[in-house]
Amino acid sequence: MTSERPVPADEREQAVTDEVVASFDGTADPRLREVMQSLVRHLHSFARDVRLSEREWEAAIEFLTRAGHITDDRRQEFVLLSDVLGLSMLAVAINEPKTPGATEATVFGPFFVDDAPEVALGGDLAGGAPGTPCYVSGQVRSADGTPLGGTRLDVWGADGDGFYDVQYDGNRTAGRGWLRTGPDGTYRFWTVLPTPYPIPHDGPVGELLTASGRGPMRPAHLHFKATAPDHRTLITHIFVAGDPYLDRDAVFGVKNSLVVEADHHNSGRAPDGSLPEGAWASMRFDLVLAPGEDD
Amino acid sequence: MTSERPVPADEREQAVTDEVVASFDGTADPRLREVMQSLVRHLHSFARDVRLSEREWEAAIEFLTRAGHITDDRRQEFVLLSDVLGLSMLAVAINEPKTPGATEATVFGPFFVDDAPEVALGGDLAGGAPGTPCYVSGQVRSADGTPLGGTRLDVWGADGDGFYDVQYDGNRTAGRGWLRTGPDGTYRFWTVLPTPYPIPHDGPVGELLTASGRGPMRPAHLHFKATAPDHRTLITHIFVAGDPYLDRDAVFGVKNSLVVEADHHNSGRAPDGSLPEGAWASMRFDLVLAPGEDD
Ligand SMILES: [Fe+2]
Ligand SMILES: [Fe+2]
Repeated sequence: MTSERPVPADEREQAVTDEVVASFDGTADPRLREVMQSLVRHLHSFARDVRLSEREWEAAIEFLTRAGHITDDRRQEFVLLSDVLGLSMLAVAINEPKTPGATEATVFGPFFVDDAPEVALGGDLAGGAPGTPCYVSGQVRSADGTPLGGTRLDVWGADGDGFYDVQYDGNRTAGRGWLRTGPDGTYRFWTVLPTPYPIPHDGPVGELLTASGRGPMRPAHLHFKATAPDHRTLITHIFVAGDPYLDRDAVFGVKNSLVVEADHHNSGRAPDGSLPEGAWASMRFDLVLAPGEDD
Repeated sequence: MTSERPVPADEREQAVTDEVVASFDGTADPRLREVMQSLVRHLHSFARDVRLSEREWEAAIEFLTRAGHITDDRRQEFVLLSDVLGLSMLAVAINEPKTPGATEATVFGPFFVDDAPEVALGGDLAGGAPGTPCYVSGQVRSADGTPLGGTRLDVWGADGDGFYDVQYDGNRTAGRGWLRTGPDGTYRFWTVLPTPYPIPHDGPVGELLTASGRGPMRPAHLHFKATAPDHRTLITHIFVAGDPYLDRDAVFGVKNSLVVEADHHNSGRAPDGSLPEGAWASMRFDLVLAPGEDD
């Protein structure tokens, strides 16, 4: 059988897309159907728009294969890929609560650890991490201004050398911990001042960054996760003002409202009355949570 | 710093996309820049259109991770994913030569082997594969009707049990080989009549098919790759008319012009004068190549 009339290219291509979209019509879960049919439409539009060559298709398969093979329990190349394509930050933006005044969220990142130690309010979670001691304090409030006493704050950050504890050999815990705010919603703790660091860039995502003239660096930041009853969990960072990478975060996580001045002190008494040996820094940041429940 | 005016959600989301697109501005290779910026725009449109939840984002990361881990030298889950999303067939359609009358192409598939044996014109490439003997013949021509003598035809197919030789243990070669057309462009060979078979479906792609109410089956087909000087290489199949899966090929490879009647004979002399023991089949298919060069 031979078709009589030559079918124009765009009709032929649209027919492929239509057939694939229709093949998902029988999906039992309506949400899965919606997601898959939209994914097919958008992926096909991409391939058609750029006139994807077969060599480029092969390169994409090879890229994903290598990403899969470098991924293990300690390395997640697909998360990195999502991060450098801005998909992770877009998902954050899409899911951000609409409450006015709530603190903005940013990417979760790959360095959270579930069983970090509890520290007392005002305690030190540096755990011997190298770097400049940094006193961090602020208040957690609900969007209407009510102080949120008893809020759980998980905190984690890179040390003065740009590494998280989990990136060292051994099982050292440092630069991470959790505490609860006091009855007035305030918190304070010591850690070390974070420094900029590169995302893992010795894999395919690193090659993509290089080929794109992009760097792997993230500006210095401290991660926060704030959990309070009847409020949306907030996952965010505070960034250190003046960092050279604030305008080119490899994962697009920076928001102006999250950039905080770090005050540097060569000596003197800290706000908690202690007298640090040598230089120290301090940062202040209030967190405003949106009322509601997590999805 | 806190932003004074609440930024509407769609503006906030568009800002993420704009920032990511701009981050590829410095890509040295203009084609890579075009492809990556288009990919970012389309992936972001997808995430925004479906209002991708963070749980769904996590499920996607997990899916890709599992696809990566099941992929090895013999199993290519990313190719399967591309196949069942119709991206492979779309890439075929996009790259199809525009020459009127040229035989249509279809997916390459994962079962081609580089060092298949040469067989003589009229020879048998079944190699002992189980199934009904099948005599396949036809002519290879250029689009202007000129017979293309000396064209290399690579042929491979599943056996009567629905398996390719490489899916068996051991290193048996069966149901594959290559030959050259005679001076008049004609070809003929024996193999076994192919039968429908499932694509590998014990991995994440199989789960996606199940969740989508789709099956893993491909209708019976024989793969051809035709290579002639000064012509585009043609990669295609012939499909067996009447196959129950013609209207639901798991990888969308079927085109009407590639469906061929298999004549069934309970006994009698074959077109090459031989007298097969028992039943045999025959199929006839001409291949028309587009002048040009491969990309
Ligand atoms: Fe981080
Ligand atoms: Fe096949």
